[in-house]
Amino acid sequence: MKNTATLLITCPDTRGIVAAIADFLFQHNANILHADQHQDAENNLFLMRVEWDATGFTSGESNFNLDEATFSQEFAPIADQFSMQWQLKLSQHKTRVAIMVSQYDHCLADLLHRHKSGELACEIPLVISNHRDTEALVKFYGIDFHYLPVTKESATTKDNKAEVEAAQFKLFANYNIDLIVLARYMQILSPDFVARYPQRIINIHHSFLPAFIGARPYHRAFERGVKLIGATGHYVTEVLDEGPIIEQDIDRISHRDQVEDLIQKGRDLERIVLSKAVRWHIENRILLYANKTVIFD
Amino acid sequence: MKNTATLLITCPDTRGIVAAIADFLFQHNANILHADQHQDAENNLFLMRVEWDATGFTSGESNFNLDEATFSQEFAPIADQFSMQWQLKLSQHKTRVAIMVSQYDHCLADLLHRHKSGELACEIPLVISNHRDTEALVKFYGIDFHYLPVTKESATTKDNKAEVEAAQFKLFANYNIDLIVLARYMQILSPDFVARYPQRIINIHHSFLPAFIGARPYHRAFERGVKLIGATGHYVTEVLDEGPIIEQDIDRISHRDQVEDLIQKGRDLERIVLSKAVRWHIENRILLYANKTVIFD
Amino acid sequence: MKNTATLLITCPDTRGIVAAIADFLFQHNANILHADQHQDAENNLFLMRVEWDATGFTSGESNFNLDEATFSQEFAPIADQFSMQWQLKLSQHKTRVAIMVSQYDHCLADLLHRHKSGELACEIPLVISNHRDTEALVKFYGIDFHYLPVTKESATTKDNKAEVEAAQFKLFANYNIDLIVLARYMQILSPDFVARYPQRIINIHHSFLPAFIGARPYHRAFERGVKLIGATGHYVTEVLDEGPIIEQDIDRISHRDQVEDLIQKGRDLERIVLSKAVRWHIENRILLYANKTVIFD
Amino acid sequence: MKNTATLLITCPDTRGIVAAIADFLFQHNANILHADQHQDAENNLFLMRVEWDATGFTSGESNFNLDEATFSQEFAPIADQFSMQWQLKLSQHKTRVAIMVSQYDHCLADLLHRHKSGELACEIPLVISNHRDTEALVKFYGIDFHYLPVTKESATTKDNKAEVEAAQFKLFANYNIDLIVLARYMQILSPDFVARYPQRIINIHHSFLPAFIGARPYHRAFERGVKLIGATGHYVTEVLDEGPIIEQDIDRISHRDQVEDLIQKGRDLERIVLSKAVRWHIENRILLYANKTVIFD
Repeated sequence: MKNTATLLITCPDTRGIVAAIADFLFQHNANILHADQHQDAENNLFLMRVEWDATGFTSGESNFNLDEATFSQEFAPIADQFSMQWQLKLSQHKTRVAIMVSQYDHCLADLLHRHKSGELACEIPLVISNHRDTEALVKFYGIDFHYLPVTKESATTKDNKAEVEAAQFKLFANYNIDLIVLARYMQILSPDFVARYPQRIINIHHSFLPAFIGARPYHRAFERGVKLIGATGHYVTEVLDEGPIIEQDIDRISHRDQVEDLIQKGRDLERIVLSKAVRWHIENRILLYANKTVIFD
Repeated sequence: MKNTATLLITCPDTRGIVAAIADFLFQHNANILHADQHQDAENNLFLMRVEWDATGFTSGESNFNLDEATFSQEFAPIADQFSMQWQLKLSQHKTRVAIMVSQYDHCLADLLHRHKSGELACEIPLVISNHRDTEALVKFYGIDFHYLPVTKESATTKDNKAEVEAAQFKLFANYNIDLIVLARYMQILSPDFVARYPQRIINIHHSFLPAFIGARPYHRAFERGVKLIGATGHYVTEVLDEGPIIEQDIDRISHRDQVEDLIQKGRDLERIVLSKAVRWHIENRILLYANKTVIFD
Repeated sequence: MKNTATLLITCPDTRGIVAAIADFLFQHNANILHADQHQDAENNLFLMRVEWDATGFTSGESNFNLDEATFSQEFAPIADQFSMQWQLKLSQHKTRVAIMVSQYDHCLADLLHRHKSGELACEIPLVISNHRDTEALVKFYGIDFHYLPVTKESATTKDNKAEVEAAQFKLFANYNIDLIVLARYMQILSPDFVARYPQRIINIHHSFLPAFIGARPYHRAFERGVKLIGATGHYVTEVLDEGPIIEQDIDRISHRDQVEDLIQKGRDLERIVLSKAVRWHIENRILLYANKTVIFD
Repeated sequence: MKNTATLLITCPDTRGIVAAIADFLFQHNANILHADQHQDAENNLFLMRVEWDATGFTSGESNFNLDEATFSQEFAPIADQFSMQWQLKLSQHKTRVAIMVSQYDHCLADLLHRHKSGELACEIPLVISNHRDTEALVKFYGIDFHYLPVTKESATTKDNKAEVEAAQFKLFANYNIDLIVLARYMQILSPDFVARYPQRIINIHHSFLPAFIGARPYHRAFERGVKLIGATGHYVTEVLDEGPIIEQDIDRISHRDQVEDLIQKGRDLERIVLSKAVRWHIENRILLYANKTVIFD
């Protein structure tokens, strides 16, 4: 299994940044595997992703000679000089993912199969659902399934959203969850939920945003008579369907396609778009600024 | 050059329609070249396009034995029986197209080149512009160019929209125009203009509608951070950018693309989408219902 | 569940075919749901697919008034008159599918999930594999799994291909199999196998045929430096990878993609392309001529 | 107009390359605009493209302080240390392009329009054709047109290929041509021609190579019954259609499409693919190795 370190940097754009980083890594014997950078002229921003071989320290001078703690110390002067926001990610610390799902299981089944195939280098210890439909599938893959039904407000009772979310937070904490994936989870998260996990909740929306924000996008696409349908993977922020877009894709439809056909074609889009968004997140390929994503591929 | 007749039918869906039409055409010796139909269950509608060989009447019994006038008489009982709306189109009566354009000439240049190549089986006798930029190009292709500048309202003068549109209507009449193509014409048409030419004005909008309705869609797409840009060819109706969609396409963009890159990539989309929309119109492949298009391909 | 009859016709193109069929169906009270036709001028062929409501005979005059046996009798004169090859397919007789697979399970998992979701209107009673890797997955979906390992020829033994295929034929017979789907089954079928099931074996090939016929197409695509990879779903005929193509799709790659990336991206193509090919077959949408497919969508 | 310098580097992969280059550019006050790199593990190669602001030397210390000649001197030690192959390209030295064309003018018209629109930052002083069909179009754009007809070998005469190519070489020299674009030029170039202009001849082939190498690819695609057609832009090498691929794209076809439809749909592919290939070349975005292209986007 690969053993790499990835450094993600955002800072004001100025001369000498690349030279400083490259020198630093060279001095510490890093064998760079991938490096990519992006400059945004309008916002005067410099963004960089660099990944290097982090094979064990005992194997001698041919390897990177800092560990996670000493890296922070040694890198601090450069980070300060250029006012960097930075993160160091080690491939051996695998992202721990919780999947939330309702009744449609196509994205869930897809993510679980990809994970088992080795395509998604993360841990998936936990699936939460407000329905029991996916329980057998989740257990087949050896993953813990937690059933947390959501009740609606009625004449005699309040809804239980707050209690359910409290239980969810507890599960996320117990399982040390890093990333929450909404794989067609049909409940709206509270502002508190969203605020607790910034840039750590990925949702799949079944339209090419910003078209058809909100409910029943396939029905509305059908009524509008569009010739393309889409799906959008995005980070969840406080405003519904307006978070930073990670990935989008479309498929062609025609007058022959009824709403059911849109839904069926859309399932393939949702599967592929969501799995890419998750993959790029866990491979530390995404940087955010100005409500946009930079995807280092 | 081909010589065909095309019958377009819309009527309530019931049994026996196809049998009645097929019998009629068989009795009159039609050699059917293409036939396609669509049923919309929700609206209980039947839509059909059938095209047959209309080679000259003198060549004997192997050919279709009705002309345009006698067709109407003979077909009337069937049309009445099934409450049909119908149109008969002869390929020898070529659609006469006027193109309206402002300064961006990529769609215009594309349409003129396709027309010259024989890809668009129409006449293009007239181009109208509110700028002189495209005059040389239009004349190179041997087409009449009319310059009708539009002035804005100011402190001292009214705008001249009404006068300009009156002049345009006159030109359309003089040139016997059947179809008006807005090839990046950057003026908004008056309600009167739109009402005069129902289903006879095609526009190219530079976004995947219904996203980014209105002005500066590429700028807004850039700000939103979408991963796909699009273009939409549609009929113009009274509500801006809400007419029936004929064709859409998209291209992929990334964080590396600036607004200028979106504009440049979008030009290819606009060219291809608009040319397809125009082509399908002039080949009588489009039927409308419920603000949607059926494209018989 | 829907209850329809579908008539598929191939015959020499001449006048009066549509009229004859439409009259026949009208006389027998068919409520036509879909009809599509294709004419091939070069081969002078007429091909048609017509689907109508076949709800029970007891429900009176509003329904189709022939059953499978009487249909044949009544339709025979028309079929003879136009020299038709024809098939009548009833949606209630679901196609019985056997899936053959080796170790890569992504297409298998995809087909089983789609089937369970109701997207594939067929029976899948049987999976055969030369490996045990997929056994648990198959059983999870409640489907019989048969393990038939294939041994290679060595110094001391012959290969067991003939015995294995004999066992496979027996299983196909016992399970009343109509269609065999090779979902990344990595053994080459004998000419005898192929000859027994004409137009009844669908394979997924992991390239855009006719490029990269044969083994290791992703490796060869990588070496050639192509910018697109593809997958092809096709009927199996005696010549390897040269059967009629049902569906193809591609994905974009770049110099950043290694062979493993091609393989991973290709899995999504293979899943989608194979599932469409299977779907169109079981929905009786495919007619063959001249080593090509007509897909009535 | 932009004024940048672009450095393209290929060398064996080892530690310290990026640090050395970044330090060098920083020492000489370069304001880096874009940087991208690629490592090929299999061939142990490092490839890099870096572009920086090269605004005039007189404007003081805020600008890059080397000119073309001193750059070579100063950069030599680094280049030697890492065994680099390198090129320095200045945006102010625009690539001079000759277009060769036969009768189909769609790629030519497209390139000329894009050039006029400012999309292609090159000079196009020269078009050569073996037919007169495109002469008026070329002259409309103010470009020199040279008619060099090619005669075939017959009973009484030899072909004139050698004489024609000699005349072409002379024109390339007289016009200081850097890049030759074959925009549907239907003559096969001699080995001598190809050898004279390595990596300086771009061709558009009307199939998704390596499928349908050679003549009449659309006809062969039609016969094979493919569901996708393609186009490939590539550098010309001694072996027909086997040079490094720069760009490919495809479009979907169906059984309804005849050969003429493939040809028509293919024109859009050819236009877009060829224009991208030319654009990336003149923007110095392409590096070659192992018969493949790296496209720095």
